[in-house]
Amino acid sequence: MSGIALRSVLLAAATLMLGAAKPLTTTEVLAQSTPADWRALDPQRTLYLELPAGRVIIELAPEFAPNHVANILALVREHYFDGLAVMRVQDNYVVQWGDADNKREIHTAKKTLNAEFDRPAKGVPFTRLPDQDTYASEVGFSNGFAAARDSATGTAWLAHCYGAVGAGRDTDANSGGGTELYAVIGHSPRHLDRNVTLVGRVVKGIELFSVLPRGTGNLGFYEKPEQRVPLRLVRVAADVPETERTSLEIFRTDTAAFTAFVEARRTRTDEWFKYRAGRVELCNVPIPVREPAKR
Amino acid sequence: MSGIALRSVLLAAATLMLGAAKPLTTTEVLAQSTPADWRALDPQRTLYLELPAGRVIIELAPEFAPNHVANILALVREHYFDGLAVMRVQDNYVVQWGDADNKREIHTAKKTLNAEFDRPAKGVPFTRLPDQDTYASEVGFSNGFAAARDSATGTAWLAHCYGAVGAGRDTDANSGGGTELYAVIGHSPRHLDRNVTLVGRVVKGIELFSVLPRGTGNLGFYEKPEQRVPLRLVRVAADVPETERTSLEIFRTDTAAFTAFVEARRTRTDEWFKYRAGRVELCNVPIPVREPAKR
Repeated sequence: MSGIALRSVLLAAATLMLGAAKPLTTTEVLAQSTPADWRALDPQRTLYLELPAGRVIIELAPEFAPNHVANILALVREHYFDGLAVMRVQDNYVVQWGDADNKREIHTAKKTLNAEFDRPAKGVPFTRLPDQDTYASEVGFSNGFAAARDSATGTAWLAHCYGAVGAGRDTDANSGGGTELYAVIGHSPRHLDRNVTLVGRVVKGIELFSVLPRGTGNLGFYEKPEQRVPLRLVRVAADVPETERTSLEIFRTDTAAFTAFVEARRTRTDEWFKYRAGRVELCNVPIPVREPAKR
Repeated sequence: MSGIALRSVLLAAATLMLGAAKPLTTTEVLAQSTPADWRALDPQRTLYLELPAGRVIIELAPEFAPNHVANILALVREHYFDGLAVMRVQDNYVVQWGDADNKREIHTAKKTLNAEFDRPAKGVPFTRLPDQDTYASEVGFSNGFAAARDSATGTAWLAHCYGAVGAGRDTDANSGGGTELYAVIGHSPRHLDRNVTLVGRVVKGIELFSVLPRGTGNLGFYEKPEQRVPLRLVRVAADVPETERTSLEIFRTDTAAFTAFVEARRTRTDEWFKYRAGRVELCNVPIPVREPAKR
């Protein structure tokens, strides 16, 4: 099976690169990483959501949803989201925010867009994971985002892992557009893949969402307006004074260090593990994020 | 592939049984279910954890962890847990409770037990899912618990899905025993399968755990004792006066109705779905729980 062969290659790569006799632990891989294994967040595609409890930071994925990302940036810049609220928190599923009362006007942005459920696989980088997946023939990472591919259709799409951010829609596939967004706060609902336009993922602050009181209405909607959690302010990081930005670096997913990181997640050589799966599922590879050392 | 063949059989079963031209939705399957498709919780293997915010209900799995379950029942009945606390809440991972200060005495129960990571597959019922899994060659449900099997070793074990409850341990495999327990509140950490003794699952009230403030210490431990969330009282349901019990029924996992339910999760014929995966991953089949109608 190609999965087995690929695994051998990965093991060899990890071993060669770092000169170790056995695969490293994730801690060791990160400790041995170099500055080139990390990248700064691009402030032009980073959102800050200011909740009462703090800042949620979202990295957008224009490679996968260019129109939605452009529209969300336009919505943010016309202050569409400011003062709106989280109105749905469904346990083991999603938090959702937007214009619960459907009263907010839209000026320069669009209310709806055609779906961007998938895209041609050609042209997007893809670091493939060696293990089989329930939902897709190929899974891996593209520029830091969990993604999947299908060689039969030649398409690629983002995957619904923990923290993924998507554009809510009604029954019509083209009824979304970014005015209502959600983030995954439970087990990865991969059955939503290719059913919703994913636009990015939460890279910091997801716990500000995941601790919110669950809504008791249908689908986890809050039953009373006063239960909603206000979004004080939503900004593009580039529009925020540098002194107020959160400096973050993301572990790159196209490096030998990342391959070693994946192998560490697969083999778990830490002494605590008695049974080493030797496999890893897409959404069980959290991409490391760090605050860079002060200079 | 056997998965495809099995799927056809399942489809046929679902169609024949319910006389439908296309697979039903989960809502339709549950609406058409009969009383025989449900079972009451057995109060002798049900725990009530009384938190400040309400009751968390755990169904124990003695088929998979007989010694741990017997020990936990003994611990509960000697009031070991009463007044202890949740001392760890790690986002997208687990909540953990026990004797944070290591001061509580144990009387009739045992402090540690030999691991019960897996058991012979022979003798446990198993409703197999038709789709491939990253971690195990066979996955499915056994008496309402997500489980896995390996025909090569002839073993079966419980799977770490959302809500699964396990016995924390130190590095030694036999250092657990049930004095410290955890519940999964994030994406299923299936790499823990066969590394920890799973003892059951939360069937109601998991959201009382999943909204708890995340600990800011290493591994999500609370850094200050006053942050801990008290466990007022932990009881075996059978020891609670009937009038104070929570009446619950669990959807059986060994019925034709359950097969139809799984098929509904796989095919998603609801109009909202534009891309129907035709597959379902183990931890994406939540087992329905209901409060029985008053008589």
